[in-house]
Amino acid sequence: MQKDDIREGTPDAPISPNGSIGVFDSGVGGLTVLREIVRALPYEDCIYLGDTARLPYGNKSRETVTRFAVKNAEFLVSAGVKFLVVACNTAASAGLDAVRDHVRIPITGVIRPEARRASSVSKNKKVGVIGTRATIKSGAYERAIHGFDPAISVSAVPCPLFVPLAEEGWFDDEVTRQVAERYLAGLATEGVDTLVLGCTHYPMLKQVIAETMGYDVTLVDSAVPIAREVMETLGEMGLLRKEPRDRRLTFYVTDDTTSFARVGEAFLGFGLDDVRHVDIVV
Amino acid sequence: MQKDDIREGTPDAPISPNGSIGVFDSGVGGLTVLREIVRALPYEDCIYLGDTARLPYGNKSRETVTRFAVKNAEFLVSAGVKFLVVACNTAASAGLDAVRDHVRIPITGVIRPEARRASSVSKNKKVGVIGTRATIKSGAYERAIHGFDPAISVSAVPCPLFVPLAEEGWFDDEVTRQVAERYLAGLATEGVDTLVLGCTHYPMLKQVIAETMGYDVTLVDSAVPIAREVMETLGEMGLLRKEPRDRRLTFYVTDDTTSFARVGEAFLGFGLDDVRHVDIVV
Repeated sequence: MQKDDIREGTPDAPISPNGSIGVFDSGVGGLTVLREIVRALPYEDCIYLGDTARLPYGNKSRETVTRFAVKNAEFLVSAGVKFLVVACNTAASAGLDAVRDHVRIPITGVIRPEARRASSVSKNKKVGVIGTRATIKSGAYERAIHGFDPAISVSAVPCPLFVPLAEEGWFDDEVTRQVAERYLAGLATEGVDTLVLGCTHYPMLKQVIAETMGYDVTLVDSAVPIAREVMETLGEMGLLRKEPRDRRLTFYVTDDTTSFARVGEAFLGFGLDDVRHVDIVV
Repeated sequence: MQKDDIREGTPDAPISPNGSIGVFDSGVGGLTVLREIVRALPYEDCIYLGDTARLPYGNKSRETVTRFAVKNAEFLVSAGVKFLVVACNTAASAGLDAVRDHVRIPITGVIRPEARRASSVSKNKKVGVIGTRATIKSGAYERAIHGFDPAISVSAVPCPLFVPLAEEGWFDDEVTRQVAERYLAGLATEGVDTLVLGCTHYPMLKQVIAETMGYDVTLVDSAVPIAREVMETLGEMGLLRKEPRDRRLTFYVTDDTTSFARVGEAFLGFGLDDVRHVDIVV
């Protein structure tokens, strides 16, 4: 039942290793994913798209999120990417199949690598998942985790205020702590030993989430697992750049570039030199 | 200096009183405004548009919000409205002039009626304004209030978490109370005697805001002032329907209709019978 997220989109025509790795998210959150990809693959050009004019995706319908995801993917393909990473959990849970139908390059979302990691680290086979309302409603994590291990019991809880709290910068904060207690109390009493942070914003609240859940609960976020998956897959497909070279990182946003460059630095860990505006018609 | 928001957009060709009143907001918030318009003008047809696929507007750039506002207005004009109400404070503060340039019907935003009301009720001439980041950054309330009374001192504070808290339904809630204390402490100590709720979501948090500010502070929201302004202006322009008739209320949204109908009922105060989806290309 487990879908092979990557090979399914592979085209018949050969893809050039000279293309870029494309990554999109609704906003800055996916930069935490790009950060790990950039670290793991030092010679690859990367193109990042943040759909900041239409963010957030987390409370929107599957149809709308899918429409946005397809447009984002089409833009990145037209910009010359050889591999596409859907770094937004909401978009990956809602529209990965639709995106795959529209683009002729290999593609992966953040769900499967996280599910694989959670399945392998859980010892008591009780895994918690937190995400946006749309991600949780989709049931995508349950399906992906059960694809790796049907015996795992999955408890999924939406945490809609975590994104605005992270964007407000209230990372280690009393209000955030209370909100976390309210959202996570059920998961903590259920005794999950692993918690999937199913939204690219949530790693910014890791400290508070860890305190609330207890430090014996393993927190799984998407950045490292997906970077590993991208590296492995490009390697298997013969699409890796191996020669040392200066690579190019290009950032596109659908809203204002200035505030994205400023806020993005905290998520990416270094400065964003080349941020451009793009109009994507939906 | 005060702009006459309404007459400026009046076209040369006569407008028919048989048209509808058009109201738009980024989401459900503007239904609190529509509710008062519907009450004040019982025989008028109304068309409401909630741009739920692209909400929220509050943290986005002036250019993006203006672009969305113009598209929304053009749609409502094409649907046959005789008068346009920009019920979203962020859109009204960012793009009212641009909207006026694009449509040939009279138009008003929520800023001026609130500013007029706040100017007339403040006794100590200290007025507070709360709103989204974009609304506060625009300085639109300061300009509008000073247009009525330049001697009033205006203190404006952005409250970005109020919208997600209201959408989470945490109206009378300990977390909301703490967030309110953090945002409003400065305004309370400054001794404002009037506070403008500069976002259509904020009336849902009125109880907590009133407790935090103290009950001697007058809270001004846009619903009643704008309904009065619409009624007066339509009357002056000879555009009022005076014959008793069954009127039609039509709702359009750019995202899913079902959840809008469900959530909207709390904001409107009665059921939404006719909710339709529309794709607005931006």
